[in-house]
Amino acid sequence: MNEQILVSPTDLMGDGVFETLHLRPSGPWLFDQHLDRLARSAELLGLPPPPPVTPPAGQTGVMRIIYTRTVFHVSVAPIPDQVLRERRDGVRVLSADLGVAVGRQPPWSLSAAKSLSYAGNFAARRWAARNQADDVIWTAIDGSVLEAPTASIVWLSGDELGTVPWERAGILPGITAAHLLSLAPSVGLRPVRRMLTLDELATADAIWLASSVRGLAEVVTLDGVTRPRSSWTDRLLTLLGF
Amino acid sequence: MNEQILVSPTDLMGDGVFETLHLRPSGPWLFDQHLDRLARSAELLGLPPPPPVTPPAGQTGVMRIIYTRTVFHVSVAPIPDQVLRERRDGVRVLSADLGVAVGRQPPWSLSAAKSLSYAGNFAARRWAARNQADDVIWTAIDGSVLEAPTASIVWLSGDELGTVPWERAGILPGITAAHLLSLAPSVGLRPVRRMLTLDELATADAIWLASSVRGLAEVVTLDGVTRPRSSWTDRLLTLLGF
Repeated sequence: MNEQILVSPTDLMGDGVFETLHLRPSGPWLFDQHLDRLARSAELLGLPPPPPVTPPAGQTGVMRIIYTRTVFHVSVAPIPDQVLRERRDGVRVLSADLGVAVGRQPPWSLSAAKSLSYAGNFAARRWAARNQADDVIWTAIDGSVLEAPTASIVWLSGDELGTVPWERAGILPGITAAHLLSLAPSVGLRPVRRMLTLDELATADAIWLASSVRGLAEVVTLDGVTRPRSSWTDRLLTLLGF
Repeated sequence: MNEQILVSPTDLMGDGVFETLHLRPSGPWLFDQHLDRLARSAELLGLPPPPPVTPPAGQTGVMRIIYTRTVFHVSVAPIPDQVLRERRDGVRVLSADLGVAVGRQPPWSLSAAKSLSYAGNFAARRWAARNQADDVIWTAIDGSVLEAPTASIVWLSGDELGTVPWERAGILPGITAAHLLSLAPSVGLRPVRRMLTLDELATADAIWLASSVRGLAEVVTLDGVTRPRSSWTDRLLTLLGF
């Protein structure tokens, strides 16, 4: 996209919030949930409530809402090929210790806000690419699984469809993961939110990175170890309307 | 400043680097050091080497260089009154545990880069303001002193003029603090780089927040405890050309 917007230099300091949505012909997927999270993120950064958004209709793509102290910008772009490929073929993932202690965020913590300060998220994915991987699972110093730079972690163990509790872990509340877990009983699975270690995650029947546009990207290698593909990947993607 | 620049929405994701310099009538203070750090920050973010900068002359103010994948922008603004006031009157500081383990940064860590992802830095200072303070000293989970959101920590204990070693602590290399320590022997002080705990810092004869434009802001209260003003504040500010 060559779209350009006029901003103040201080708008480039990452001091704002955003949302990325999957734009479907029927409208932006999980629109209200994303607007709710945008408002909660804004509050955490001391921004006024965001203005209303008119949902684009009849298009497929990536919808992005950016909100800083002086900018409110909504854009629509095509879905990158890599995203479609990762949804179909899965992702090679490396784990990495973030060096943080679970539950010890500072009082102003923005870990529950989708802030524009994404340099670390991009850097983590560039590191993965330099190491022949597609993405990263972040862990805490006690080995707890946290999240991925742009996705939540979801796993299947027996009939347990699990994700990491965002409040306890100090991570972003994942909208796609929460929606998927709400649908779990309809396909005979049991939704569970709990902390688990990387070692335990590695024994799961399936692991996915859950996010709005990629939907579910199955983890096909974890730290270089190949994992068998799960028949649940297609089933859950269908359940999510992909 | 009402100056506006044209950017792509992706430039608002904090994925760039910056420098803030004290612009003096003789030119930007410690210009080469700031350009060096800009280049090292850029490298950590996978950006090409930044283009050359022509230093503005004959002005006093705040010079800011912003560099992202598509923007290179240099601006000059007046020094905010608050900065001048804090240089003169000192700062009330609160300490806060960041929840990080010293020396356990992830392999892509940007802690040594002055990245544009500053939402957390701003949020920390807003938290200070909500708690009747001006600034924050960040600590690690073992109680080690790290840095402030926009400054390095410098202390005086006897003839020791100390600062935190940035490589070991996983913090930004502070240019003002390094320059000050290089001048320490000329005023009979001994430059020391070492880790110390907050409890030990609290026993120092004087504590300052060191940064380019504020210069040195003496810590006049730490976690609500008033500290005696040091006669070294004026001496060291003079040494730095303020």
